[in-house]
Amino acid sequence: MGCCKNKELVKKAINTVRLLAADGVQKANSGHPGMPMGSADYAFTLWSKFLRFDPKRPDWLGRDRFVLSAGHGSMLIYSLLHLFGYDLSLEDLKNFRQLGSKTPGHPEHGHTAGVEVTTGPLGSGLASAVGMCIGLKQLAARINAPEELFKQQKVYVISGDGCIMEGTSHEACALAGHLKLNNLIFFYDDNKITIEGSTSLAHTEDVGARFAAYGWNVLKINGQCPKQIEAAITLAQGSKDKPTIIIGTTTIGYGAPTLAGTAKSHGAPLGEEELKATKAAFGFDPEQSFVVPEDVKAYCDECIAKKQADAAEWDAKFNAFLGNSPESKALLDAILNKSVPADLEAQLLAAVPAKDVASRASSGAMLQVISKLVPAVVGGSADLAPSNNTYMKEAGDFSAENRAGRNFHFGVRELGMGLICNGLALTYALPFSATFMVFSDYMKPAIRLAAIQKLHEVYVFTHDSYAVGEDGATHEPIEQLAMFRSIPGVTLLRPAEAHEVALSWAYAIRADHPVVLSLTRQALPNLPADVVAKMDVSKGAYVVSSDDNFEAILIGSGSELDACVKAADALRAQGKKIRVVSMPSWDLFEAQSAEYKESVLPKACAKRVAVEAACTIGWSKYVGDNGLVIGLDHFGESAPYKVLADKYGFTAEKVTAAIAAYLA
Amino acid sequence: MGCCKNKELVKKAINTVRLLAADGVQKANSGHPGMPMGSADYAFTLWSKFLRFDPKRPDWLGRDRFVLSAGHGSMLIYSLLHLFGYDLSLEDLKNFRQLGSKTPGHPEHGHTAGVEVTTGPLGSGLASAVGMCIGLKQLAARINAPEELFKQQKVYVISGDGCIMEGTSHEACALAGHLKLNNLIFFYDDNKITIEGSTSLAHTEDVGARFAAYGWNVLKINGQCPKQIEAAITLAQGSKDKPTIIIGTTTIGYGAPTLAGTAKSHGAPLGEEELKATKAAFGFDPEQSFVVPEDVKAYCDECIAKKQADAAEWDAKFNAFLGNSPESKALLDAILNKSVPADLEAQLLAAVPAKDVASRASSGAMLQVISKLVPAVVGGSADLAPSNNTYMKEAGDFSAENRAGRNFHFGVRELGMGLICNGLALTYALPFSATFMVFSDYMKPAIRLAAIQKLHEVYVFTHDSYAVGEDGATHEPIEQLAMFRSIPGVTLLRPAEAHEVALSWAYAIRADHPVVLSLTRQALPNLPADVVAKMDVSKGAYVVSSDDNFEAILIGSGSELDACVKAADALRAQGKKIRVVSMPSWDLFEAQSAEYKESVLPKACAKRVAVEAACTIGWSKYVGDNGLVIGLDHFGESAPYKVLADKYGFTAEKVTAAIAAYLA
Repeated sequence: MGCCKNKELVKKAINTVRLLAADGVQKANSGHPGMPMGSADYAFTLWSKFLRFDPKRPDWLGRDRFVLSAGHGSMLIYSLLHLFGYDLSLEDLKNFRQLGSKTPGHPEHGHTAGVEVTTGPLGSGLASAVGMCIGLKQLAARINAPEELFKQQKVYVISGDGCIMEGTSHEACALAGHLKLNNLIFFYDDNKITIEGSTSLAHTEDVGARFAAYGWNVLKINGQCPKQIEAAITLAQGSKDKPTIIIGTTTIGYGAPTLAGTAKSHGAPLGEEELKATKAAFGFDPEQSFVVPEDVKAYCDECIAKKQADAAEWDAKFNAFLGNSPESKALLDAILNKSVPADLEAQLLAAVPAKDVASRASSGAMLQVISKLVPAVVGGSADLAPSNNTYMKEAGDFSAENRAGRNFHFGVRELGMGLICNGLALTYALPFSATFMVFSDYMKPAIRLAAIQKLHEVYVFTHDSYAVGEDGATHEPIEQLAMFRSIPGVTLLRPAEAHEVALSWAYAIRADHPVVLSLTRQALPNLPADVVAKMDVSKGAYVVSSDDNFEAILIGSGSELDACVKAADALRAQGKKIRVVSMPSWDLFEAQSAEYKESVLPKACAKRVAVEAACTIGWSKYVGDNGLVIGLDHFGESAPYKVLADKYGFTAEKVTAAIAAYLA
Repeated sequence: MGCCKNKELVKKAINTVRLLAADGVQKANSGHPGMPMGSADYAFTLWSKFLRFDPKRPDWLGRDRFVLSAGHGSMLIYSLLHLFGYDLSLEDLKNFRQLGSKTPGHPEHGHTAGVEVTTGPLGSGLASAVGMCIGLKQLAARINAPEELFKQQKVYVISGDGCIMEGTSHEACALAGHLKLNNLIFFYDDNKITIEGSTSLAHTEDVGARFAAYGWNVLKINGQCPKQIEAAITLAQGSKDKPTIIIGTTTIGYGAPTLAGTAKSHGAPLGEEELKATKAAFGFDPEQSFVVPEDVKAYCDECIAKKQADAAEWDAKFNAFLGNSPESKALLDAILNKSVPADLEAQLLAAVPAKDVASRASSGAMLQVISKLVPAVVGGSADLAPSNNTYMKEAGDFSAENRAGRNFHFGVRELGMGLICNGLALTYALPFSATFMVFSDYMKPAIRLAAIQKLHEVYVFTHDSYAVGEDGATHEPIEQLAMFRSIPGVTLLRPAEAHEVALSWAYAIRADHPVVLSLTRQALPNLPADVVAKMDVSKGAYVVSSDDNFEAILIGSGSELDACVKAADALRAQGKKIRVVSMPSWDLFEAQSAEYKESVLPKACAKRVAVEAACTIGWSKYVGDNGLVIGLDHFGESAPYKVLADKYGFTAEKVTAAIAAYLA
């Protein structure tokens, strides 16, 4: 592919990108002009001559992906989206960083057509791009598509030194090399400048040698030379079994007479005078802003037409393939639609283990059923699958040799796993990721980005309390439930036993946003059939048992519900009237009607006790001014969990005694 | 250094370590025998022949540091501590993983003498070791100690593939190479086994080439050959300007007849039969457990005596130096004691800027004073110093060329920064680290470890709300305050203006645990002198103004206090009686007496409003069942912050209207 034009016009087009970016930042009086100006040569060359897309169909199945991992350079992608025919007007560029505009400070997926992933937190775009590479290869392999149809499909990333320094770049790029993701082409905009000054202050690694050690192709070019850029991308596209990094030396703020090459051009407008001088140096009218010369526009239109024709040609081939392959077509539809059988809940409940098991184990049983019923589901663990019970026995392993496998071995790389799963969710999959609850800490930035992007993902976090036991304080989560409850758009479910696990998984599979499952290491007793019959996990809380004229409400979540049930029995034996409520999810309970909430937790009953083996923050909302919270506001320690349960007051006996004292 | 003995005895001693570890795990019926058994050759050789320590003085200033980054192999360090004379008995080894024992599941600093850092979460020990290397070099340089006294002082780390895969290993090790930390000697126990199976499932990078790219020495040996181990450590000790990685191929569970080399020996006891067979194979009595042969004991005692003599010799030289260098002595004392002038608060208040500034700016002014008054303070930012206002102008930069500098350029490596600062706190410094509040997410695992270890550190997190403005949702913290409030042992302070900033810094400097400062991007009006006179930040909350017979309490934190103050004025103009409370810290308020709490927030006043631009979780505790919380339970967006303040209801006008409606 490629539109042949004279060098001067291409140069003019690239300078148009530079000036649109600098104008946007100047008008907003806020933003980052340096990065777009430095990387415009690469980005424009990529978009005009290589990137496969149809601006009128941003969701075109056959398209390449473009990821601006250096998200602060957002005016670069906005300028390109405008020039290449996406639904982004010059007016939108003028509204950069203004309320409600399509051009927010950092690119936002789902908000601006053509933005494939929300970026800004450094390293995250690059790692999510690795997930996209996996997702694209996996989809093509699972539907058994002809190789030539998808071998051109690439994920192109641009980042600066920030992403290179971030730890997750190591996690994701080491895995990309391991998995031989030759569909990844990563341009490292090596401009030698960070916010604090020269990269030599903190960053002197040999990036090429490092990526070679990961099993990548390494290409080094002058990042401001379109000819070298073209040659490098062409080479990268031909890579048989390696991802490619193109290390391009560039000048930050290229073209700005006094600020080019300085940290001052990184994160602030160039200033009116400097911007005018830049325009003059490029042969543009210094008095005009947001200019797209006619010949540049015509050139871009020509490129668009070519790309659309190529896309139509691809569609014809792909549809021909699907027409001849009804099984592939059916699987593709099931994956794209995230098809779920209507009786998912019933099928999961039918698979509940007969004997009392840990909720990680019942979760494992559910996952075996889900892997068969829901083709979109893929996932894995950060090297803890045997402990998380997350291996799908009949789904195969995704590897360099088997692109159709649905289990991932992420390695000990939690944040990378989280961001890769974001990338999977951004392609076609419904991914889950798993680790011990306490190590969800590593994943916080990824989970936040999943929530911001409303990505449908499931987090399987096992070993969810002090009951991890012998591993001690470093492995016993205390504050993580509060962490998830405080992230907007994340639903946390902490099921109390196997039937609640089944319904929690069903909720997670039917959801449209990130769902965290909090699961135990230790066995939990199943609730009796009469409770199961009225169990409503999707409402967040429901009544387990209730005496007439109850004088107190015991609210339990997860593993602590059992102590509430047993405490209620003991208190009833003493003549007390008690209601027991299971509360697997605050988020879901909050979403219910005032009537439902009142029916479960009537205001008239002011004696309320919440029992949860975690930081107590926030429970006061449910127990009220006169309530009692039995929780854990200190770190755990190393001992068998039953010893800790006794010490920390979570045995049925201790809970009963505490509640009796409270009621007295 | 080195004790010459015959090969057989050394082998026996190494097998003693293996069996003590396996016995401990077997008796606890829980733990990780494989790693200690595989790395015992290296560890015993290091401890017997190289590691400089005095077991009777675990805090000896001249000692080397040993970091078991693979913390799950805790029985390795416990066995060594026992053999080499630390306060850890055979009885303690038998109590492995039991409540209150000195031998918890993962090594805990401050709990077991000789454990230099709490490890378990992978990657953390290695990154903290980099901080120790910096801290040791910095201390020696700052007191201008003779080079020969400290050039032997090393930090020795052992880790497995988990630490190597974790992202923070990249962050910390890239920086270690950049800073030419030749006092770091890192043994990579390369046993090819992870929990999910062979490392080939997920981990095929060329580790040596990667570390060479960071500027490290790379040595490759048979990790089970004491002769090669000795040679490698000797080479590493001589490194002039590079950290060293020794990549040692080992067999996990070495010596176990059927389980060696398998994932089964990683995280579970070997089993009685396998353990007996292992003992037999080593020539030990299969029927006995926790055995230290007499000749092994004698050998270790001989090594200890030699080490103690060396330590005494070092002390003599060091004391001679100090005796001749009163300035060095004074500085050393000030650093070791973390000396703080008695009038710190007054000096900080005197430095409050006259005009209203952002709290990040007043914080920057405080830091200039603190850097002069408190020699123990060192710190830096993850490439955001100009925005965080954290550069100490007269303190110099720590670099390969200037070991005495107190400012760090951590690069874009937040988690690495957090863990390195833990290492600094574990040596001698009082470190601070800085980034945007939203990127504290990356640091969560480090902050948790700081809290578990009760490390005295300060976190300077600026840009602490939606008022980041134009950067948009990815850069606007919502849930981070709740995250910090939920971590046990962390104090969060969100000062409302410059005097509160001064007193928050004073609290942070005098504390003995991790303190988070939440600071604004935007300017905040200073409170009047009469309020400053009664300001008591260290109590967590105090009364700013109060009418007689007040009917409502307005509680504000940080940037939202001003809206409360203005709303009170407006409501008073309408005839309402109002109290205004500034609440910079929940943690500190909770620590006050019931009387003090009642005096600030009397129960009799049930009309309470809290205003804070963050997730509302937990505020119900302070506003009560009939209260109102004006917060932000959704993500932010990109726009000038005053536009967002209006949209989200945080302007004085909007807050006033909301409170008026609530009171009506």
